[in-house]
Amino acid sequence: MDNIDSDNEILNKKIISVGHIALDYIFNVKKFPEPNTSIQIPSAKKFYGGAACNVSVGVAKLGLKSGIVSCVGYDFRSSGYSNYLKNLGIDISNVYHSDEEETPKAWIFTDTNNNQITFFLWGAAKHYQELNAPNFNGDIVHLATGEPKFNIKCAEKAKKCKCLVSFDPGQDLPQYKKEDMENIINYVDFMFMNNHEYERVLKLLNIEGDELKAILDTLIIPYRKNGSIIYHNNDEIKIPAIPVDNVEDPTGAGDSYRAGFLSAYLKGYSLKECGIIASCMASFVVEKRGCQTNLPTWDDLMNRLKDRGINIV
Amino acid sequence: MDNIDSDNEILNKKIISVGHIALDYIFNVKKFPEPNTSIQIPSAKKFYGGAACNVSVGVAKLGLKSGIVSCVGYDFRSSGYSNYLKNLGIDISNVYHSDEEETPKAWIFTDTNNNQITFFLWGAAKHYQELNAPNFNGDIVHLATGEPKFNIKCAEKAKKCKCLVSFDPGQDLPQYKKEDMENIINYVDFMFMNNHEYERVLKLLNIEGDELKAILDTLIIPYRKNGSIIYHNNDEIKIPAIPVDNVEDPTGAGDSYRAGFLSAYLKGYSLKECGIIASCMASFVVEKRGCQTNLPTWDDLMNRLKDRGINIV
Repeated sequence: MDNIDSDNEILNKKIISVGHIALDYIFNVKKFPEPNTSIQIPSAKKFYGGAACNVSVGVAKLGLKSGIVSCVGYDFRSSGYSNYLKNLGIDISNVYHSDEEETPKAWIFTDTNNNQITFFLWGAAKHYQELNAPNFNGDIVHLATGEPKFNIKCAEKAKKCKCLVSFDPGQDLPQYKKEDMENIINYVDFMFMNNHEYERVLKLLNIEGDELKAILDTLIIPYRKNGSIIYHNNDEIKIPAIPVDNVEDPTGAGDSYRAGFLSAYLKGYSLKECGIIASCMASFVVEKRGCQTNLPTWDDLMNRLKDRGINIV
Repeated sequence: MDNIDSDNEILNKKIISVGHIALDYIFNVKKFPEPNTSIQIPSAKKFYGGAACNVSVGVAKLGLKSGIVSCVGYDFRSSGYSNYLKNLGIDISNVYHSDEEETPKAWIFTDTNNNQITFFLWGAAKHYQELNAPNFNGDIVHLATGEPKFNIKCAEKAKKCKCLVSFDPGQDLPQYKKEDMENIINYVDFMFMNNHEYERVLKLLNIEGDELKAILDTLIIPYRKNGSIIYHNNDEIKIPAIPVDNVEDPTGAGDSYRAGFLSAYLKGYSLKECGIIASCMASFVVEKRGCQTNLPTWDDLMNRLKDRGINIV
């Protein structure tokens, strides 16, 4: 793995994410309101978000090529999001612009126990159903939250384009019908789910965990501050979390984990190393409010791992 | 009461509201989300709101003079709200503009049982604490949701300016300390509270209902679709609701009730008639989404009452 960063071929590796670009309004509240009550918030801030785009930006910050396939609304340019992605060198040529709908928005409320409730405005995302999957000129296609049918189309096309397929149904999981899920997992190389989503998928498919693990090449389940587990063949690789002193906002931690994992994979690291790098990536993101506010560079990751006495070459 | 509308003196009557101008984002959801779940909303729309401003606009639509004392942010003009109020002839000369903060915003979620939860962004409202009460050149000063100390200052000043004082603490009620409430109710002629707020005020003041009713000249308690009750001296005047076929959004019904009540009062109607006119006003507002979307004119009110066989001269 020596001099891996100087290898042009690896720096030309590209990860294309499919799914939401969203504007996030993130609020910290003492507790969630009861029906017919009001909660006062002193101030609020708008952040760039959307699970797919969080991964795209994470990948770009790590120095790999990055692209996104998404649907946005009439406020994409005026919000500043469009220029911000262009300045990061992210390929947005496959982003569909709606004139009638607004860019998806998430209102995310986090209580003092880091529980979250999210209201997600679908908006321009209604156009996914009219779109065809593009020709993917990349190495990994990462399917994030978005429209199930469009994600299935993209999974098929990605395989035709000889890409690896990564999948994170996330908060849109309830929108997948049984046949959607049965269909898409046949194309998937890496699947990311938290333990609740994992249980939900098993129930939806009416199968046991071992059966699902046999279908997927690699299954990665994060357990937040308890680390994560990577299932591959019959191996169960436990990855510790990288603790940080001050968790300000957990939003986006999972997306940064995916960006770190997939980038490390394309750089040639072992699954265990990919998991450690992914955890380290997430440890940065939780330190600041917003999904893309505190994304590290590759050097930042390596320095933090070194500081913690974790050896990754 | 004949030819009351042609009486110029009455049309020159002015109601000045004190409190929030806000931008409302109103959403209908099937149910409120559980912790760590997400709710999808197909589309959302921004509405003009803020309890005080809802009353001001309601009053202006009924043809009386209307003014507002409030704090807004840097987005007040660009949002279109400023011009909209000017075009309605509402006096906004006592609206404070903040350069650093945004205009207060409410994210209001209504479930299928018409229960609501609200997240209210305080924003520019932080400036109330620096403001002095203006000289009120009106007949009624209506104190709506807003900063308790500023409302107290305005109640005192309103009395010095020989205005009647109306008070609706609404969702900001928890911000009133016992001494604030004890202080303000001495100035109040009309107090509007729903039954939950009424119980809360009694508890806060540690008094019985009869004691509170003896302090206030007139207490008006709405019971949503079960009508409202006006308490005045020892009278208990029951007002029926004006039913409508299709309740689309209850938001703003209470504010329109207040606008209708106070306007009718200044036009010289009896308390019972004021209540009926107020209920009729609310019956329009619930038919459309938004607090100010479907506010009627005086003629609209009279026509609906006539259609329902209710005689108001």
